[in-house]
Amino acid sequence: MEHNILSSQQLLEHWQGHRRLTRRVIEAFPEDQLFTFSVGGMRPFAELAVEMLLMGVPGIKGVLTGKWKQLVEDNQTQKKEPPRTKDALLQRWDEATAEMDALWPQIPAQRFQETDVAFEMYEGQVYWFILYWIDNEIHHRGQGYVYLRALGIEPPPFWER
Amino acid sequence: MEHNILSSQQLLEHWQGHRRLTRRVIEAFPEDQLFTFSVGGMRPFAELAVEMLLMGVPGIKGVLTGKWKQLVEDNQTQKKEPPRTKDALLQRWDEATAEMDALWPQIPAQRFQETDVAFEMYEGQVYWFILYWIDNEIHHRGQGYVYLRALGIEPPPFWER
Repeated sequence: MEHNILSSQQLLEHWQGHRRLTRRVIEAFPEDQLFTFSVGGMRPFAELAVEMLLMGVPGIKGVLTGKWKQLVEDNQTQKKEPPRTKDALLQRWDEATAEMDALWPQIPAQRFQETDVAFEMYEGQVYWFILYWIDNEIHHRGQGYVYLRALGIEPPPFWER
Repeated sequence: MEHNILSSQQLLEHWQGHRRLTRRVIEAFPEDQLFTFSVGGMRPFAELAVEMLLMGVPGIKGVLTGKWKQLVEDNQTQKKEPPRTKDALLQRWDEATAEMDALWPQIPAQRFQETDVAFEMYEGQVYWFILYWIDNEIHHRGQGYVYLRALGIEPPPFWER
C-alpha cells in the first residue's frame, strides 16, 4: 500500500461510536414495536440488531483466528435463540461491546490488508470485511430511523456518537 | 498514530463503490416518486441525494484547500437550484464521480490525521469528516431502501458495489 491514513484504534473507535448510536436506536423503540414493527415487509429492528451482533464479535474472532467454520455454526445456533425482550437485547449488545474492545487490540496491523474468506462466504481483504460490517449496521440503522419516524418517534441525532 | 491499516486509494474506492450503489438506488425510483415519495414525513430521496452531492466534491475541495467559507456559500446557491429530473440528477452524480476521482489523489497522506473545521461547522480530524460523509450516504440510502420497498420495488443488493 502506498499511503496509510487510519489507525486500527481509530477504526475500532469509529465502529464503537456507531454501535453507541445503534444502542440508542434500540432504546428508542417501544418494546413491542422493536420486535414487530416493519415497513414494506422488511424485518423488525430487533432482527436487524441481532444480525449486527452476529457480525461484530464473531467477525473479529474470525479476523483474529482465520477460522470461520465454527463461527458460522455458532451463529446458526445463536439465530435460533434470539433475545426476546429489549433488556435482553441491550444486555447482549453491551456484552458484545466489551468483548470487541478486549479482542480488537489483538489484531496484528498487517492483518487488515490480508485476503481471507469471511464466514466462509465473502472473499476480500480484511479491512474490507470490517468496513462492510460497519456499513451494514449503518444501512440497517437507517432503516430503523424510518421505522421510528413512521411510529411518530424522533430518532437520536445521527451525528452523536 | 501507532498502526496504519488503510490506504488513501482504498478509501476512495470504498466511497466510490458506495456511490455506485447509491446511483442504482436513484435509478430504481420511478421519476415522480424520486422527488415526492416519503415515509414518516422524511425527505424524498432526490433531496437526500442532493445532500450527498453537497458533501462529496465540496468536501474534498475543503480537505484539499482548508478553505471552507466559499464552499459553504456555493452549497447554499446549489441548494436553490436542485436538479428537477432523474436524468439531471444522474448527470450531476456522474460529474461528481469524475471530479472526485480527479481531486482525491491530490490529498497529501498526512492530511487525513490533521484537525480542521469542515464546512466551518464540524471540528474533527479529516479522516473523521470523510468517514462521516460516507456514513451519511449509507444512512440515507438505507432510508431509500425502505421507500423502495414501501413502493413495492426491489432495491439493488447492498453488497454489490
